[in-house]
Amino acid sequence: MKAPIDFYFDFSSPYGYLASEKIDELAARYGRTVNWHPVLLGAIFKVTNAVPLVQLPVKGQYYVRDFARSARFLGVPFRLPDPFPVATQNAARAFLWLQDRDPAQAREFAHACFRAYFVDNVNISEPEQVLAVAERLGIDRAALAAARAAPRLKERFRALNEAAIARGVCGSP
Amino acid sequence: MKAPIDFYFDFSSPYGYLASEKIDELAARYGRTVNWHPVLLGAIFKVTNAVPLVQLPVKGQYYVRDFARSARFLGVPFRLPDPFPVATQNAARAFLWLQDRDPAQAREFAHACFRAYFVDNVNISEPEQVLAVAERLGIDRAALAAARAAPRLKERFRALNEAAIARGVCGSP
Repeated sequence: MKAPIDFYFDFSSPYGYLASEKIDELAARYGRTVNWHPVLLGAIFKVTNAVPLVQLPVKGQYYVRDFARSARFLGVPFRLPDPFPVATQNAARAFLWLQDRDPAQAREFAHACFRAYFVDNVNISEPEQVLAVAERLGIDRAALAAARAAPRLKERFRALNEAAIARGVCGSP
Repeated sequence: MKAPIDFYFDFSSPYGYLASEKIDELAARYGRTVNWHPVLLGAIFKVTNAVPLVQLPVKGQYYVRDFARSARFLGVPFRLPDPFPVATQNAARAFLWLQDRDPAQAREFAHACFRAYFVDNVNISEPEQVLAVAERLGIDRAALAAARAAPRLKERFRALNEAAIARGVCGSP
């Protein structure tokens, strides 16, 4: 039994989005499964002394081109959202909550969040937009709305972020 | 007639070295030629607010693994030199001087410098080592030694670096 691939991503990361569209298929080709781990690049950047790619002088413009070029290369629809980047703790916590209940639906929700942001330019930093994405998938909006602000879920996500950083996660994906 | 590919590299850049072993063949496959442009990452980093990859907290260790992994993937021999990174203006100026005289030999010299550093762990920041690399290729050591310190060559390399940055060059390759 081969070990699963740990896939760390931020819902606001273009390369995370592009990888999310390919990783399960790629893993399956090698007889492996994938564990999806949402993280917050903001927390990681504090440790790695980094800033969002597009904020880098000179290099930022290169990345804007490379996002679109990489998407074309992979055949994945993409547009750079506005605003970009955004904070994604609401989407990430919703994913965690769903994963405990229905891992397949959590995966579906992750794809829907990524596509909402990087295809339809929906600002998934807004809690209402995250709930709307979930609702379209038949997820109980009221239950998610009640759960996502619970201190336990927030604390769990914070601890998972720290564990990821301790493991050497330094970007997305 | 297709435009040549402009290949910007620092002789101390692992990804520059790996690309140097593949770029001419890759370009030829698409009916294109390659213009080789040595640059100094140190000057570029001042503009992009960057530091050498291996100095990044957490991410630095990732890059150490990725250098070796990328080399294995491409089938290119590689070891991380010590010291790393090093200043490469001596190698770069020698390349420019050679390029005016014999472009094919300059290309050969570039490969020899990269391989000296990334395969044989030769510290190519040292002027004597650059001369030794050149001498082994049958290049006139005394003529190169006299030319490489000339203010005109230094000034030309400095101007080429600035032109590269103005063009948006933000890394190697």
